[in-house]
Amino acid sequence: MTYRPAARLADISPFHVVELLTRARQLESEGRDIIHMEVGEPDFPTPAPIANAAVDAIKSGKTLYTQSLGLPELREAIAAFYQTRYGLTLPASRIAVTNGASGALNLAFACLADPGSKWLLTDPGYPCNRHILRAFEGRPRHIPVGPESNFQPTPTQVRQHWTAQTRGLLLASPANPTGTLLTLPEISALAEVCRQNDGHFIVDEIYHGLTYEIDAPSACTAGDDIWVIQSFSKYFQMTGWRLGWMVIPEAYVRDIEKLAQNLTLCPSTPAQYGALAAFEPETLSILEARRAEFRRRRDYLAPALEAIGFRVTARPEGAFYLYCDCSALAADSFVLARDLLEKAGVAATPGLDFGSHKPEKHIRFAYTTSVDRLAEAVRRLSAYFGG
Amino acid sequence: MTYRPAARLADISPFHVVELLTRARQLESEGRDIIHMEVGEPDFPTPAPIANAAVDAIKSGKTLYTQSLGLPELREAIAAFYQTRYGLTLPASRIAVTNGASGALNLAFACLADPGSKWLLTDPGYPCNRHILRAFEGRPRHIPVGPESNFQPTPTQVRQHWTAQTRGLLLASPANPTGTLLTLPEISALAEVCRQNDGHFIVDEIYHGLTYEIDAPSACTAGDDIWVIQSFSKYFQMTGWRLGWMVIPEAYVRDIEKLAQNLTLCPSTPAQYGALAAFEPETLSILEARRAEFRRRRDYLAPALEAIGFRVTARPEGAFYLYCDCSALAADSFVLARDLLEKAGVAATPGLDFGSHKPEKHIRFAYTTSVDRLAEAVRRLSAYFGG
Repeated sequence: MTYRPAARLADISPFHVVELLTRARQLESEGRDIIHMEVGEPDFPTPAPIANAAVDAIKSGKTLYTQSLGLPELREAIAAFYQTRYGLTLPASRIAVTNGASGALNLAFACLADPGSKWLLTDPGYPCNRHILRAFEGRPRHIPVGPESNFQPTPTQVRQHWTAQTRGLLLASPANPTGTLLTLPEISALAEVCRQNDGHFIVDEIYHGLTYEIDAPSACTAGDDIWVIQSFSKYFQMTGWRLGWMVIPEAYVRDIEKLAQNLTLCPSTPAQYGALAAFEPETLSILEARRAEFRRRRDYLAPALEAIGFRVTARPEGAFYLYCDCSALAADSFVLARDLLEKAGVAATPGLDFGSHKPEKHIRFAYTTSVDRLAEAVRRLSAYFGG
Repeated sequence: MTYRPAARLADISPFHVVELLTRARQLESEGRDIIHMEVGEPDFPTPAPIANAAVDAIKSGKTLYTQSLGLPELREAIAAFYQTRYGLTLPASRIAVTNGASGALNLAFACLADPGSKWLLTDPGYPCNRHILRAFEGRPRHIPVGPESNFQPTPTQVRQHWTAQTRGLLLASPANPTGTLLTLPEISALAEVCRQNDGHFIVDEIYHGLTYEIDAPSACTAGDDIWVIQSFSKYFQMTGWRLGWMVIPEAYVRDIEKLAQNLTLCPSTPAQYGALAAFEPETLSILEARRAEFRRRRDYLAPALEAIGFRVTARPEGAFYLYCDCSALAADSFVLARDLLEKAGVAATPGLDFGSHKPEKHIRFAYTTSVDRLAEAVRRLSAYFGG
């Protein structure tokens, strides 16, 4: 038979970092010590109260299908969290529990993206977003963003890039790979541009909770017509459980429910029972201690990398990444990343994985490992660059 | 803002049975006893060895992301299962572990369905399949199937329905809602028609293991160009865990991996560690005892329903459903299903949920409850019809 994948496959790239990771594992199997700064995953285990709640559910047989939009009590708990954390009153009916933030974005684009519709995304940005969009036959249009706007799009840029085919804007705050935040006035101004164009505004808030000076404002505050994607993976440290949620504009709740019934049936039941414990005071106090540790790592790593010659051009206010300009040190970050792995035993993610706006000048370091290991990485990098 | 979902939403129906289920729960909250024969979910808990393996993994912190196509050792275990159960040698590289069979079909159609491409599906059939296809902009074309072909399509029908736009055929064996099987020669003949048309053949085998006279042959035996969808939900009784797998033709493994990396990241890690125990002798002996119980229920229920006037026109060789012709008892199965719930306290699924080929004449009873409860249901139905 003829090999004939759908045409969209030509536009869907693999993660380049996976190649690097495969090579890293090979080196490790040969006895090399590799410091992993490429991984977008907290190194902390899932907090015990969450793990215990999941275990209790499994042991008592609570492993059947749930409602497609999630356990009603979990939707209520998430809505209540918006009240306590953001002072926001949201009806639980607008919350859909999903297969991670990935699952949320799959449902959002299945619901909103007509074939050929254009969507504005930032470059650099999290690469899966444009690929999920493409899977549902929407088309990404990239807004190049740089340090001059803290790697976030401005209302002027959004207006400039909006055309008759544009259906909406998707961005992340804190952003990946840069960790930069939008303020509430900035979110509101971008929302207003979307409204003026009768378009959708989707905000990825999966790194909320992992911010180190100010608390990130939720786009939910800027209007109930905004779609907000969230995750239990990062702040709540439930990566492998695959659980997230979405705040849906009321008019689309029924559509998302129909899609969830058909595309996924329901999110993982054990994960949902675990997540019921995510908002307990005991869990939150564990998470806040870990947030402080992430901050300590960032505050160590950023100046240490700058001392070597990397430039942290964005304010890394959240997430656990430093997106560094490495152009003073190397001509091509992709080549650099491979060389750092081979010669220094440090794994980092080349800009290429985040888009096509100056990727060769950038490399992302994740501080998802201890300060001791970060310090060892800095020593190795320093030696590599002859420091 | 204008309410403007993607055009595809108009083609995606909700499950009608959910409405019925909501009403059933309301009646139960008022103190009524309802016998649930509408649910496509085993009433047995997840076997203890699987649950325990998941608990052990959670307790030892094995809750991080896995590889996008699943834990290598789980892919190996699934491949080994094809050897022991079907005598088939499959490379583990062709196995993708997924978010349930739903996740597998999402990936398959994301990989294969170009916008406007036509796909042959059976009517009646599992409704989510056509909706997942539609979400990725493929278009279903239905082959009406009835008792004359045991509710499975014949090679002649497939040839008749195939047009220049047709890209493939999807069917299920055992089928839902009918429980009917295809023999290996039948599968091979259908595969040959697909090959002659240079089209894809996708076979849903999620009810494998739940067959009561003969073991269902796997389509994997009929060629390594066939896509096979499987699930840990039904035979392995892991519904809420959301875990399944897919056997992929070699040429598409890399494409599916790229899609999985971007659309889902990975399947649930605790579920995967649980599933590692699914093929252990202890687990299989639990599952085989339950299979015998399902058979006992079927053997009780089918003649009992026929005695009332329902006609089981297909050979219900597998799954846990009886798809009954109720036209001698009622003009419209949708009205009947509502009336049975209200007046007899028996919940069943009207044909409407499975397609548009004579749905009003059919109703599906699931034997996912004990023989005692089935007997009570039969008494109530008998009384309802004045027997």
